[in-house]
Amino acid sequence: MSSTKTNQGYFFEDYSVGQVIDHATPRTLHDGDVAMYQSLYGPRFALQSSWDFAARGSALRNPIMDDLITFHTVFGKTVPDISLNAVANLGYAEGRFLERVESGDTIRSTSEIIGLKENSNGKTGIVWVRTRGFKNFDTPVLEYVRWVMVRKRDASAPAPEPTVPDLAQSVPADALHIPETLDWSRYDFAAAGEAHRWGDYEIGEIIDHVDGVTLTDPEHMMATRLWQNTAKVHFDVTARPDGKRLIYGGHIISMARALSFNGLANAQLIAAINAGAHANPAMAGDTVYAWSEVLDRAETTDPHVGALRLRLVATKGAAGRLRGADGKYLSDVLLDLDYWVLIPR
Amino acid sequence: MSSTKTNQGYFFEDYSVGQVIDHATPRTLHDGDVAMYQSLYGPRFALQSSWDFAARGSALRNPIMDDLITFHTVFGKTVPDISLNAVANLGYAEGRFLERVESGDTIRSTSEIIGLKENSNGKTGIVWVRTRGFKNFDTPVLEYVRWVMVRKRDASAPAPEPTVPDLAQSVPADALHIPETLDWSRYDFAAAGEAHRWGDYEIGEIIDHVDGVTLTDPEHMMATRLWQNTAKVHFDVTARPDGKRLIYGGHIISMARALSFNGLANAQLIAAINAGAHANPAMAGDTVYAWSEVLDRAETTDPHVGALRLRLVATKGAAGRLRGADGKYLSDVLLDLDYWVLIPR
Amino acid sequence: MSSTKTNQGYFFEDYSVGQVIDHATPRTLHDGDVAMYQSLYGPRFALQSSWDFAARGSALRNPIMDDLITFHTVFGKTVPDISLNAVANLGYAEGRFLERVESGDTIRSTSEIIGLKENSNGKTGIVWVRTRGFKNFDTPVLEYVRWVMVRKRDASAPAPEPTVPDLAQSVPADALHIPETLDWSRYDFAAAGEAHRWGDYEIGEIIDHVDGVTLTDPEHMMATRLWQNTAKVHFDVTARPDGKRLIYGGHIISMARALSFNGLANAQLIAAINAGAHANPAMAGDTVYAWSEVLDRAETTDPHVGALRLRLVATKGAAGRLRGADGKYLSDVLLDLDYWVLIPR
Repeated sequence: MSSTKTNQGYFFEDYSVGQVIDHATPRTLHDGDVAMYQSLYGPRFALQSSWDFAARGSALRNPIMDDLITFHTVFGKTVPDISLNAVANLGYAEGRFLERVESGDTIRSTSEIIGLKENSNGKTGIVWVRTRGFKNFDTPVLEYVRWVMVRKRDASAPAPEPTVPDLAQSVPADALHIPETLDWSRYDFAAAGEAHRWGDYEIGEIIDHVDGVTLTDPEHMMATRLWQNTAKVHFDVTARPDGKRLIYGGHIISMARALSFNGLANAQLIAAINAGAHANPAMAGDTVYAWSEVLDRAETTDPHVGALRLRLVATKGAAGRLRGADGKYLSDVLLDLDYWVLIPR
Repeated sequence: MSSTKTNQGYFFEDYSVGQVIDHATPRTLHDGDVAMYQSLYGPRFALQSSWDFAARGSALRNPIMDDLITFHTVFGKTVPDISLNAVANLGYAEGRFLERVESGDTIRSTSEIIGLKENSNGKTGIVWVRTRGFKNFDTPVLEYVRWVMVRKRDASAPAPEPTVPDLAQSVPADALHIPETLDWSRYDFAAAGEAHRWGDYEIGEIIDHVDGVTLTDPEHMMATRLWQNTAKVHFDVTARPDGKRLIYGGHIISMARALSFNGLANAQLIAAINAGAHANPAMAGDTVYAWSEVLDRAETTDPHVGALRLRLVATKGAAGRLRGADGKYLSDVLLDLDYWVLIPR
Repeated sequence: MSSTKTNQGYFFEDYSVGQVIDHATPRTLHDGDVAMYQSLYGPRFALQSSWDFAARGSALRNPIMDDLITFHTVFGKTVPDISLNAVANLGYAEGRFLERVESGDTIRSTSEIIGLKENSNGKTGIVWVRTRGFKNFDTPVLEYVRWVMVRKRDASAPAPEPTVPDLAQSVPADALHIPETLDWSRYDFAAAGEAHRWGDYEIGEIIDHVDGVTLTDPEHMMATRLWQNTAKVHFDVTARPDGKRLIYGGHIISMARALSFNGLANAQLIAAINAGAHANPAMAGDTVYAWSEVLDRAETTDPHVGALRLRLVATKGAAGRLRGADGKYLSDVLLDLDYWVLIPR
């Protein structure tokens, strides 16, 4: 069969530093997506759950979307161009949420290649990309760096000059975008479900989010398709030797974030992603639990809202430990996400 | 790990008669929820299926939501405060649907403790609550009583003075709320799918709804999360000794109600819930069938619409019997629901 | 139990040539349906994915719905009256998409019996119907012929005079409906994802769509209920001797169409269905692949858009062959669909 018209994905040698890729297809997000997201993860954060809660004293025109809906949509567009031939998704850095996405906004994304380094085996290389998401053509909604290990098409292709970007360990608190469309001064803690304010969280505090969810194949496939993410390992049981479908890492992020409501009900918005690791693959049948550690606190330019830097860990068991004596992630750790949230003071 | 910030749920000794609990999180219902509900149950009642059908001669501003969407949303909010440590959901009474919910309305709910009785084993007790649902802050949309068996945190805690509420056997026909926003005088029986009017149903008549649906885990989990119902037995296979997920009783109510279209296509609205029992647990793999018995008929204040009191029974087999010689529900009975519907005359 | 109020479906002897059946229940399609469709199939065609893309220079008032949403909705309404007692869905012909459906439109459908022929076994017969779908009461959106094999209620009932309609081998290119509400002159190929125009496709060219999706039961049941399709073999594991749920043929059409984006990203609209065969039954666990063959090309009345006649084949394996030496479909062929698409020039 002809394959001249189909996308086989980029291989390592197809990338060059400075290259910018405009990803297809723009996608309008709307109330239907909100309901799907609700069914898939069960979030209870008041700002996205209730239009009244969000609109009280705010300049929002339309319902606000969960920040992870924005993340998945922007990310999904990059898959056909960045990670179709990826072996592994290695990390995230310098993620910042900018203008919030409202129901009816249309999202597109672009990626710039900012680093390349061939592996010593000559068969794969690491690609660093800075991805930017926009709504309504040119309003930035999200940017982040991720790096992936990508196969070479031809092992004999010459290695590029190695370029490894210098990435921040975390997004500085004063670089967090504080939405001007929201008025936090009349925040209703009772309606939101918990009384804990920014000042109630101590650095080093660890919160067990209690509940667990056993994963299924239909749910993660429906989630992944919602974001137009086409990586075949999520859908086709013949793509892996074990006959299992690998679950999109973002599915675990969303599940853990929804579970974290219990103890972090007022952490209404995600402001930044400092780092993230999909420590082990997740499969249908795994039961996901989550816990959080408070890593840092910061004031913001809005006196009614503060920032918490959190580590959100998803595990397959109820384990509270992250790494073994060898410094490696324990085998039941699925996710280690370092991120900033906004929470009323 | 710290648990000072997480909700462990109320135990029996945490309740007192007269206590009122405002449940978090308000939830806006919208077209996205309608589509999820459609996918999960396949309802065909014309009033919710077609905006044109509903709007013809009516004062509706927006599409009307299925009454069970209202029920599940109001109910779901009570779970973290009422039934997180419940052993069993024992019954319903005095349920009345009031103002209809339209797409875009925001729902909240509150519960008042109206009865408490410790069981003789000293380990559990029964809690009666009257739950009220409101839209847009203060418009009542639903009220009902339910009682649940709840664990004690500490078996040595003293038993409260027993208070058992005096509940009506059924909602009297003249207490049914007849929506003023709907005009039934131009009802289109052909478009609705059946010719049977209120007057065509005889007390004692039994209707077999014919079709069956085999349950799956992903579907009931997606349904239960849609209503922000967090009871862990629905999601976590480690929560029960048999490694199975218990299906939310409301999932069976909605499935049976959708099946009942075949024979009750004009029973467009649910007006009241007189009583209900989840007779046996439902699990993935069970095939659900339904039949209805006409228990009573009543005129209403609107000459174009009447009320039918129905028993809706869901079973795992096609059994037409409800109870054995010992008076107990047969093991394949899942649901016995006594409710009032509104149907054109 | 009484069955006087329930629909048992039509049997072969209940039909007569010329008979017109108005199907219940009208159904409003909206953004929620778009999100469900997105989750179930993952389409990436820009015209439906992005309201901005669709609206640019167009006269659309609302987001446009995927043509297959229209097809499934019109088709689903016919099931209780046409195929509840069907043994097999034998074919399609003369399918034309007319006015496009926008979010908020209400769909109804009618079918006219245009042919009847009893089979020689005396137990079944073939029924040909021409189904028409309308939006907002009387605007035609779709028409097509299909024929099904239907059981007789009573084998001794007399056979009708055989009437076999004379159906076109394909819809002539000049009968394709070209939407006036869309302006193709400013089409953005980069945003749409591929550069291939109408003129880039050669008759006889074959395109392998690369990706595969392993089917699950919850997903096809959610899809089928979304269209209010009630055929019990899709839902009830006791309906077939093998204990499996037969997957609605339209689920395979939608899956194959979504996969065909890879190589046919600009085939934005379906204009006609010339013929179609569900060559073998599909079940959960099957992995679906797709390939297309270009059968014909035609200009249209709009100089900016052309028509391609395509054969879309879905298989369970990656087989590129359609039929064996005996002329029969190979056992891993699921779908053979002959249809016209509109694609920018």
